[in-house]
Amino acid sequence: MPLYSDIDVLVHEVGPRDGLQATDIMMSTAGKIAWIKALKNAGVRKIQVGSFVPRKLLPQMADSAEIVKATKEMGGVHVAALVPNFKGAQNAMAAGADTLNFVMSASEPHNLNNVRKTHEQSLMEFEKIVELRNSEAQYSHVTISGGLATSFGCTIAGDVDPKVVLSLAEQYVRLGADRMGMADTVGYGNPQQVKELFSEFIQIADGRDVSAHFHDTRGLGLANVFAALEAGVREFDGCLGGLGGCPYAPGATGNVVTEDLVFMLESMGYRTDIDLQKLLAARAVMEEHLQGEPTHGTFVKAGPPKGFSQVQTSAGAG
Amino acid sequence: MPLYSDIDVLVHEVGPRDGLQATDIMMSTAGKIAWIKALKNAGVRKIQVGSFVPRKLLPQMADSAEIVKATKEMGGVHVAALVPNFKGAQNAMAAGADTLNFVMSASEPHNLNNVRKTHEQSLMEFEKIVELRNSEAQYSHVTISGGLATSFGCTIAGDVDPKVVLSLAEQYVRLGADRMGMADTVGYGNPQQVKELFSEFIQIADGRDVSAHFHDTRGLGLANVFAALEAGVREFDGCLGGLGGCPYAPGATGNVVTEDLVFMLESMGYRTDIDLQKLLAARAVMEEHLQGEPTHGTFVKAGPPKGFSQVQTSAGAG
Repeated sequence: MPLYSDIDVLVHEVGPRDGLQATDIMMSTAGKIAWIKALKNAGVRKIQVGSFVPRKLLPQMADSAEIVKATKEMGGVHVAALVPNFKGAQNAMAAGADTLNFVMSASEPHNLNNVRKTHEQSLMEFEKIVELRNSEAQYSHVTISGGLATSFGCTIAGDVDPKVVLSLAEQYVRLGADRMGMADTVGYGNPQQVKELFSEFIQIADGRDVSAHFHDTRGLGLANVFAALEAGVREFDGCLGGLGGCPYAPGATGNVVTEDLVFMLESMGYRTDIDLQKLLAARAVMEEHLQGEPTHGTFVKAGPPKGFSQVQTSAGAG
Repeated sequence: MPLYSDIDVLVHEVGPRDGLQATDIMMSTAGKIAWIKALKNAGVRKIQVGSFVPRKLLPQMADSAEIVKATKEMGGVHVAALVPNFKGAQNAMAAGADTLNFVMSASEPHNLNNVRKTHEQSLMEFEKIVELRNSEAQYSHVTISGGLATSFGCTIAGDVDPKVVLSLAEQYVRLGADRMGMADTVGYGNPQQVKELFSEFIQIADGRDVSAHFHDTRGLGLANVFAALEAGVREFDGCLGGLGGCPYAPGATGNVVTEDLVFMLESMGYRTDIDLQKLLAARAVMEEHLQGEPTHGTFVKAGPPKGFSQVQTSAGAG
């Protein structure tokens, strides 16, 4: 069942995590909080605010516990955090995260490279995380999401076998995932592939919420969103200003640009309850705290079409 | 029936027309010919090489007759030219164009602004063009295409009524159009709208070839291509390097970027017979003759995914 019943598509802003972990400039804790506040004011209901990984690996994410707490204090935002292992999940739950985005790469060489674990080892961590959540009353409200990175291709392995992806999805279900997601981590996916794989993934998810995470590295981000929508996906990750990029593709954008995504969804008649003008204001806050970092996006340049109006927005808590 | 039976999707390069009519820098006749030759060498089979409009309105297109002749002499390229009226069609046929892309805006205010004609006046011109082609044996091979600009929205009128668009399509069929196209001239279209309108348009076209022309002004160009593909469209306009932009949206791209389009199609398994590496070489030729003009695109920066291979290419005449 979706987190919110009054919107058609949930846009999950992951910029404070996926964007900021790839920027050259490190955003201050105060900057992150100001940006998240502006996102909330635009009506963004779910934000991935950080990543619980070793400080020495990602110093940009060292303040994640503080950011989770500050966002919870604002109220009105569902707070998600990325966790690659049990330790990270413990810390994220202790900090007060609402959703743990557990991540494992569908490409095993990528998983070994990224989190130094085989699939089996990652799934054992996942199982322990579900057990912890189930055994502690104070964590009973926490949602555990099973995420599959590199589901559409991998910079190390090239093609990733859809059978492996779907079999890992089945493992997540078996081990008690509350929801699941697939990510095109490196921007290899194409719309046909996305539509086919998400159609099968949704079957396996069997009523659980499903989300899609696309990178725009080769310009197919929003085409992939449309393909996933057609397959039935109703939650999408985005990154304000397409923050992040790819270290291997100078000038290439990172995640799907949130404001372009919201524009596309609203123009197709899907209610997101995100106010596009206030979202651009949040983009300005982000840019203010990342002076000189390249950003992307077309809506910010072109503006809305003549006569365009959003489905209906309550504009967050305002 | 499609122009070519050995490919799945026909990519129609319109850069020498739609791109160059919007650039700040004017490309020389020699530059255009070098660029078109490079496109042909990459396997591009259909190219819109110019526009037969009054010289004083578009000085960039004043050499269109010369470019049509030079391209015909190369051989192996289906030569298209844009014509807004009977006079232009006469000149394009005399120059030797294979296809006349007649253009009328579905938004009547836009048509009045663009070609100073009502829909009725434009359709009368179209009728005379078909009659000329039918009455002169030397023009019997010429294909006449009925194009509808601003089919998905208009900077003057805002929304454009789909009923008007489809009724104009019916007029084209009645008056003898050999093929038809719809264009999102100002980048207002969204994938849902594109899929729905093209599905109906294809019904009206009743077996005639149908093509789609999208601008990427708001980042939805390739998403709209996928939506049109799903509706059954198998010919797409593109502009190498996304040349053109929009004078009202600084930094916004123009047409769908041809090389990104070819990458998307090939990655989905559609054979275009365009060699992506040679297409990038053609892009370099274009840039050489337009020093300083901004270009766009992601494939040129990110390159192909690891393990990517095209469906099968004969790489043009080589």
